[in-house]
Amino acid sequence: MRATIMHKAGDVRIENVPDAAILHSTDALIRVVRACICGSDLWPYNDKPAEGPSQPMGHEAIGRVEAIGSDVQRIKVGDLVIMPFAYSDGSCMFCDEGLQTSCKHGGFFGQPDPGGAQAEALRIPQADGTLYPINATDDDALMASLLTLSDVMGTGHHAALMAKAGPGKVTAVIGDGAVGLCGVIAAKRLGAEQIIILGRHDARIALAKAFGATDVVSERGEEAIARVIALTGGQGAASVLECVGAEGAMETAIGIARPGGAIGRVGVPHYGSVAGGMRGFYQNITIAGGPAPVRAYIDELLPDILEGKIQPGRVFDRTVGLDGVPDGYLAMNKREALKVMVRP
Amino acid sequence: MRATIMHKAGDVRIENVPDAAILHSTDALIRVVRACICGSDLWPYNDKPAEGPSQPMGHEAIGRVEAIGSDVQRIKVGDLVIMPFAYSDGSCMFCDEGLQTSCKHGGFFGQPDPGGAQAEALRIPQADGTLYPINATDDDALMASLLTLSDVMGTGHHAALMAKAGPGKVTAVIGDGAVGLCGVIAAKRLGAEQIIILGRHDARIALAKAFGATDVVSERGEEAIARVIALTGGQGAASVLECVGAEGAMETAIGIARPGGAIGRVGVPHYGSVAGGMRGFYQNITIAGGPAPVRAYIDELLPDILEGKIQPGRVFDRTVGLDGVPDGYLAMNKREALKVMVRP
Repeated sequence: MRATIMHKAGDVRIENVPDAAILHSTDALIRVVRACICGSDLWPYNDKPAEGPSQPMGHEAIGRVEAIGSDVQRIKVGDLVIMPFAYSDGSCMFCDEGLQTSCKHGGFFGQPDPGGAQAEALRIPQADGTLYPINATDDDALMASLLTLSDVMGTGHHAALMAKAGPGKVTAVIGDGAVGLCGVIAAKRLGAEQIIILGRHDARIALAKAFGATDVVSERGEEAIARVIALTGGQGAASVLECVGAEGAMETAIGIARPGGAIGRVGVPHYGSVAGGMRGFYQNITIAGGPAPVRAYIDELLPDILEGKIQPGRVFDRTVGLDGVPDGYLAMNKREALKVMVRP
Repeated sequence: MRATIMHKAGDVRIENVPDAAILHSTDALIRVVRACICGSDLWPYNDKPAEGPSQPMGHEAIGRVEAIGSDVQRIKVGDLVIMPFAYSDGSCMFCDEGLQTSCKHGGFFGQPDPGGAQAEALRIPQADGTLYPINATDDDALMASLLTLSDVMGTGHHAALMAKAGPGKVTAVIGDGAVGLCGVIAAKRLGAEQIIILGRHDARIALAKAFGATDVVSERGEEAIARVIALTGGQGAASVLECVGAEGAMETAIGIARPGGAIGRVGVPHYGSVAGGMRGFYQNITIAGGPAPVRAYIDELLPDILEGKIQPGRVFDRTVGLDGVPDGYLAMNKREALKVMVRP
């Protein structure tokens, strides 16, 4: 079968690899119906050293179940399923608590084991716990929004929850990528009224406004901090969604958080430690977040998508086949595309 | 009047200084009835460079009000009052929210303005918001416990709240100083059943057990982490109270926190950034805390002290007059004394 393999920075290829197949009795095999390229895929696209094993790419998908292992009970052949970016058994103490990303028998897609979703097919470990069957027709706009439940919409929701976004709380969203834009949707959905987006790409900012952003800060660094402070009556934002993962973004987050505020961080950290410890401490700022347990959030977010209340699928602005995946990486890396959907 | 002045590391003296006096119409003047030396006073005792202004010391006190400014309405001359380590106006948005340490017109005692509490008398800015009148007889044990509401008991409570300590949640307390020991009291009071104290000083550990600690970990670093993980069925602690402020203590905190757990940090940070970002992120660990709004917590903690339900005053194991303060610093720094009370 054909799959996307990252060899080193800038070198991502569609290759023939052994067919995905059931390995364990708890596995399922899915045919990938929709996948996409994630902002976090751009980190190895820019950083991956030439030495070390190559990496199968893709951790977001909607699929059709083609086969199941002998112990799979809840998932049936033929089911249309959302595949969260982490697999999880659905029964350990962490899954019970809704923290499936820390599942005792879990792991992440887009790794040598179990493989990546930017491919024709994929083996799904712990299929009963991992997959979320949906009953939906193959409508393009709907499928795009459902696909975001694999990662970016659930991740934006996690950022908003961890930042304690809600009514009466000024919210700031750092990053105008797909996660940041979904963070705007999530913050508005949770009741935030003033939502400040920090970003500077015109098309993305327009989408942020369509999703509910009320203020735009396009400055960087200290100037961005000063602008947010000014926009919030000198206080800063009660809820800050850090949707980038760069050290500078976290420094900005701590700089714009209101005393007693909370930062929900979901950008995969490209810093070894959280900067700005002193202000963070003296102003009692909470830093929370991590990989979103998107599996837990589908229950809550799916009805809003099915009813058309939220349309996170609008973050996709390009669709490619598998052959177009390398160009998709390039376009996202150049910021010519916001988020690229893959129809294998 | 006589007051404690820190000139440089190791050089703390009792000196004659101008009498404390009312400067603003919102001030009060207190005669210090009890004060004490704080673990955080040992940082300048070890680190303060010789250059730079000298520092008046002491930020915890019970006092008797001797005079009030013309705008003070709630506090009366003759009142016996608890003085929280931060002053606050009691009326700004942050005070309304119970975050008096971020008061818009607030600040900290033990600074050149307004001065320190290890002294005969002290000017109290924002007296109406800052001071907490109490009705108590001058009983030594009771006064010791009431004095802890100035800082260490409220600070331990803050750590426990920020770490979300409660029933069914394994709690670990890093540090066997006065704040850590009060953290044990607070965690038990909030319903924690398993309370692991990380420390290695026999007398302090004995007190931790008397306060409710169920397990003792005396190892350091990676060995301490391994022991806590083993003591918690391989999971780590849901609530971690970081009551030291050293970088190693925060690294240990992140190492022993359970996935999805919370660290309440109250040790004044002696690190520029929060270490351990990767595990903290991937396991969705919340880092919260800062200077405790002890003023807010007196309402909740005072009744328990007056009823004898908690006895945080047991952290004091030495009492000195003002002349004995330099020796008190030395004894605490050598860990010969846990916490030194001052009766000016």
